[in-house]
Amino acid sequence: MDIVLVGTGNVAMIIGQLLVSAGHRVTDVHGRNEAALVQIANLLNAKTNTNFSKLIGKADVCIIAVSDAAIASVANQIEDSNVLMVHTSGATSKDVLSKFRKHGVLYPLQSLRKELDRLPDVPFFIDANTSDDLEKLETLAASMSRQVRVCGDEERLKFHVAAVFCSNFTNYLYALTDRFCKEENIEFSYLLPLITETAERLAAKPAARLQTGPAIRRDLDTIRRHEVLLQSHPEAKLLYDYLTHSIQSFYSHTADSEE
Amino acid sequence: MDIVLVGTGNVAMIIGQLLVSAGHRVTDVHGRNEAALVQIANLLNAKTNTNFSKLIGKADVCIIAVSDAAIASVANQIEDSNVLMVHTSGATSKDVLSKFRKHGVLYPLQSLRKELDRLPDVPFFIDANTSDDLEKLETLAASMSRQVRVCGDEERLKFHVAAVFCSNFTNYLYALTDRFCKEENIEFSYLLPLITETAERLAAKPAARLQTGPAIRRDLDTIRRHEVLLQSHPEAKLLYDYLTHSIQSFYSHTADSEE
Repeated sequence: MDIVLVGTGNVAMIIGQLLVSAGHRVTDVHGRNEAALVQIANLLNAKTNTNFSKLIGKADVCIIAVSDAAIASVANQIEDSNVLMVHTSGATSKDVLSKFRKHGVLYPLQSLRKELDRLPDVPFFIDANTSDDLEKLETLAASMSRQVRVCGDEERLKFHVAAVFCSNFTNYLYALTDRFCKEENIEFSYLLPLITETAERLAAKPAARLQTGPAIRRDLDTIRRHEVLLQSHPEAKLLYDYLTHSIQSFYSHTADSEE
Repeated sequence: MDIVLVGTGNVAMIIGQLLVSAGHRVTDVHGRNEAALVQIANLLNAKTNTNFSKLIGKADVCIIAVSDAAIASVANQIEDSNVLMVHTSGATSKDVLSKFRKHGVLYPLQSLRKELDRLPDVPFFIDANTSDDLEKLETLAASMSRQVRVCGDEERLKFHVAAVFCSNFTNYLYALTDRFCKEENIEFSYLLPLITETAERLAAKPAARLQTGPAIRRDLDTIRRHEVLLQSHPEAKLLYDYLTHSIQSFYSHTADSEE
């Protein structure tokens, strides 16, 4: 298909590359940051564009890959046409684009970072206001991903909040640990195999059955020694105590654990 | 080397396999659970043993791979000899084995699960009471792993608490999310590529510079919509609020984030 891309950030960059890899043509990229615009247009072999009135042309789909807060303002500046207009936000209703006769959503459930040198697997959640366009989006998404799901605003938001727990919150635990390691002068890199293993084994077994550690074992001796070590790391210590209690409460009323 | 293994759980099973893969010989395995004992002895081509007094023989190293609480009692039942005695605990002092003239620690910083069908990368943290034995342990560990570090009780405990954050606590977030998905009737498996990506990209960039999401953006609108969704999931909602505030506080006094 012929695609117009609005945005020059992480999402635009990665979706652009996925599209090109899948054999689609990104005809135009629109952006305000000129350096970023030239970079992405070169990478995707697309024309640069800074004028919304000349944006759409004869594209099949226009993908608005900008921050949630900017979607409405971008939509305001584009005239309705026969092009299917979609945004890429997990937390924004499809209705923010309702001024367009053909509109929808193409939400990538992935943490996209343009500086990483490989393209990750990206499940797509799609929606559109007509069944024809939903089919078109499904074809487009399926050309880029093995995991495509049709879902409405509320279900998409559910995946979005689940993603906050599994990515933003886990990354924060890594960041806190990294700071602890720096302050204690030990190397975070020794933890990388453990982190990868903890993530990858979820494909084989549900997390609740993989829970280990002093909290679920109610190993008070070890917990106390950890707390002493954490005394000079107040943020980490508070979180340690909170999560330790939370784990104990969680597993006191589920029978899922194996320990 | 010739190794005697005490224990039939996850740690014994995985270290046993790593030893055999590296060309060592596990001569004997000791355990109380007979079914587990026969299984591991068969897998490692070792003799089964239920009598500590006949355990040690002419081994180079005896690895006590039992729960932290059981190490002392196992040590009590074994007579001192010329064999190097080590435990595998991150949170237990090497001194628990001080009745043995040659003693130390071989701590695998990994979540070991015998039911998974591949052997993960396992960094080893080693310690011993004589430099000769430390060298011997280093040779042994290096034959099983690219990451080996000599460290004492306190430093090992630091890695142990760091592992709680990066594995036990992240796994708990996955477990909570899995339960949320079940209760909301959405499929957790769509989150697996995100979870893997969030873990794997840490090799390329520090976690603090990879933080994204509504908390660090202070995107109150999205946070409010998430909170509404979480109202029927009180444990998850409490944790959501706690971590959202914690992230905002963390990043208000670091300049690490890119958003």
